[in-house]
Amino acid sequence: MKAEIIAVGSELLTPDRVDTNSLFLTLELNRLGFVVTRKTVVGDRNDDVRDAFRDALARVEVVIASGGLGPTQDDLTREAVAQLLGRKLVRDDAVMSSIEERFRKLGRTMAEVNRRQAMVPEGADVLKNSRGTAPGLWIESNGRVVVLLPGVPTELKALFTERVGPRLARRAGATRLHYRELRTTGLTESEVEQHIAPIYTAYTSAETTILASPGEIQIHLRAWSDDSSAAESMLQEMTERITLALGEHLFTTRGESLEEVAGRELMMNHATIATAESCTGGLLAQRLTRIPGSSTYFLGGVVCYSNHLKSAWVDVPGALLEAKGAVSPEVARALAEGIRRRTGATLGAGITGIAGPGGGTPEKPVGLVHIALADATGSKERVLQFPGDRERIRWFASQIALDMVRQYFLYARQTSSSVDKRPGINAAAERNTSKS
Amino acid sequence: MKAEIIAVGSELLTPDRVDTNSLFLTLELNRLGFVVTRKTVVGDRNDDVRDAFRDALARVEVVIASGGLGPTQDDLTREAVAQLLGRKLVRDDAVMSSIEERFRKLGRTMAEVNRRQAMVPEGADVLKNSRGTAPGLWIESNGRVVVLLPGVPTELKALFTERVGPRLARRAGATRLHYRELRTTGLTESEVEQHIAPIYTAYTSAETTILASPGEIQIHLRAWSDDSSAAESMLQEMTERITLALGEHLFTTRGESLEEVAGRELMMNHATIATAESCTGGLLAQRLTRIPGSSTYFLGGVVCYSNHLKSAWVDVPGALLEAKGAVSPEVARALAEGIRRRTGATLGAGITGIAGPGGGTPEKPVGLVHIALADATGSKERVLQFPGDRERIRWFASQIALDMVRQYFLYARQTSSSVDKRPGINAAAERNTSKS
Repeated sequence: MKAEIIAVGSELLTPDRVDTNSLFLTLELNRLGFVVTRKTVVGDRNDDVRDAFRDALARVEVVIASGGLGPTQDDLTREAVAQLLGRKLVRDDAVMSSIEERFRKLGRTMAEVNRRQAMVPEGADVLKNSRGTAPGLWIESNGRVVVLLPGVPTELKALFTERVGPRLARRAGATRLHYRELRTTGLTESEVEQHIAPIYTAYTSAETTILASPGEIQIHLRAWSDDSSAAESMLQEMTERITLALGEHLFTTRGESLEEVAGRELMMNHATIATAESCTGGLLAQRLTRIPGSSTYFLGGVVCYSNHLKSAWVDVPGALLEAKGAVSPEVARALAEGIRRRTGATLGAGITGIAGPGGGTPEKPVGLVHIALADATGSKERVLQFPGDRERIRWFASQIALDMVRQYFLYARQTSSSVDKRPGINAAAERNTSKS
Repeated sequence: MKAEIIAVGSELLTPDRVDTNSLFLTLELNRLGFVVTRKTVVGDRNDDVRDAFRDALARVEVVIASGGLGPTQDDLTREAVAQLLGRKLVRDDAVMSSIEERFRKLGRTMAEVNRRQAMVPEGADVLKNSRGTAPGLWIESNGRVVVLLPGVPTELKALFTERVGPRLARRAGATRLHYRELRTTGLTESEVEQHIAPIYTAYTSAETTILASPGEIQIHLRAWSDDSSAAESMLQEMTERITLALGEHLFTTRGESLEEVAGRELMMNHATIATAESCTGGLLAQRLTRIPGSSTYFLGGVVCYSNHLKSAWVDVPGALLEAKGAVSPEVARALAEGIRRRTGATLGAGITGIAGPGGGTPEKPVGLVHIALADATGSKERVLQFPGDRERIRWFASQIALDMVRQYFLYARQTSSSVDKRPGINAAAERNTSKS
């Protein structure tokens, strides 16, 4: 079954705001078995709003709209839809008293304009909004359904989940969307495509999308089916074949972030980590600690921009800094080994590089980054030359560091059945693509 | 003059991707004097694409579209538009040879499918794409203009800037968009509204939008006018009146980030900073070092999650941690003072709190954060109870810390005409809203 999404609001036609409610709505609609065939954004003009609904209702059975339900003159979705469907707007006493109640509880006087929010098209079902004053509306007309929701994301999400989804489910067919999200790192988009095209093209009933984001390529598998177990086992089979094809580059089949995966490895292996960052300026520590519960494995980190602090905090020898320069494989290793020694962590990560835009030289250009990981047996280092601006270079570098943590445990498992007997960082060195 | 934007691509109708090209296009169109009145997203189906263009051309003079110009069967914008306008598709030899040339340079063989990209609707002007194989197309029909651009953002931006903008400028009227972006912190959306509504409502020829994001309220002022100097001086006057009304809460009138503003203050005052973070896990350091050139004022930072490291790295007394707990005003101050002492920075910032979701208690609930700033004369501390999830709490905390840095220099200027004579951190304490 088909659905369209309409977002109402002049602010969504400015360079400042994009309609993101439609991402949530699409996911929920897909799960219920509705394909979204069009999204429209219109401003706060009565004719534009009315025409958008008219056109959508001529094409599809379900139209979900967000925005334009507030109390001000600009909020005219109610009026435009009532007009289009030839319904009068009538005052709903239950809505009125719930708005009054809301203001009473907040200890405020209700402004006169809020009365507008109690006006609903005749025959509409009111969907109670527990988080705001604008109720949602469910309107049926000629076998079609129009759902009006407030534009505030938290209110829209709660209303859809609690009131709209269950009602739509009863109208939906048996077809549902089944879904997998795989993520890889260390491969380009075309390398991923090359590796997996022979696999996914063989599954004509699944849609495969390859999406590139900095330092990460995602593979989204979608199957629409009325046979849940057949669809799930097909996706499972695809996932397994892709996993084999991509090997160590695949880090999740469940849409997790790299810091989630690295964090889980640390936790499962009862290992701890500490970080010493220069050019990434705390980004690696910040990503590791984004994860709830990370305090069990993240001990601490330092951001040592100056050479003085590199020596003072993690014992990078002044002579080494002088001889090799702050951006060098040796200093990356010294950072990783030093922070590990200072904190007593299982692993130490060190990053040094030139994030730009200034500071590059012909020998050490902007984008050059050395990343090292140390354990009790020593350290390994990778050097990379990243493209892009400061933000991208820093992100890429943190991505590689997290991936080195993940791969550390991967190799430990491959070379030994017991984690306790893992042979240390150098055992993996020969299998590594590191240049140094 | 009015324009509509159409984005073509089934991936834009999934829960994964939102059309962001339209933000860039809207800004550029606005600058040229075009109002965007509708945005439409359609999938890769010939009828849907054709209908979207048909409807848009019935409403406005200029339609800008992105996507669907690639080499595969899915890419059918060219065909659908040619069909709608009753034009044949003809091979453009210049496009053909430029695609062949591109493949030759990359040392690859051109796939047969790429020939499709050389097919253009009769009478269309080809807009050479220097960054990819898909050229843009400029098609005029019945006094209307259709511009087709590739969906890849870098290619779309370059093509628009180099080839489309200048041509549209010749068609545009004298009306242009004039624009200011003000940002505040420390006020809620409704407080901002209350302070500035009496001002902006008096300027009926300017549009004012108030946008809330975590820890920050933005005020966007827009004026459409064919009289540049009148519009600019009106916006200048509005900006000055709003600046007065919001006082210290306003941190930029030029759309800068808080870390940019705090960084500029540090740089202009020849001051340096160092950070000691617990719950924010490096986010503050990371934000400070996002800014190019931050190495001139950011000395370094530590992320000390464990009590042991709080003592080892910034000399927080073990007895203090025991007596007051790690999340306490005293420990926040000790972190700020300790990191300042250890690094010799002008200012030290300390953050300790409970980012959740675990770790809260009735006395110290999730969202409780203590933030301290130290200088040579002592330290000041703020305690806040933030709403939301881990990510929001951490962001809010970093926002307050950056704002304390900004306000530090603000008060220094207010209390002394010379920065060198600034009276130190405690002079500002009585004017601060801090609870402790």
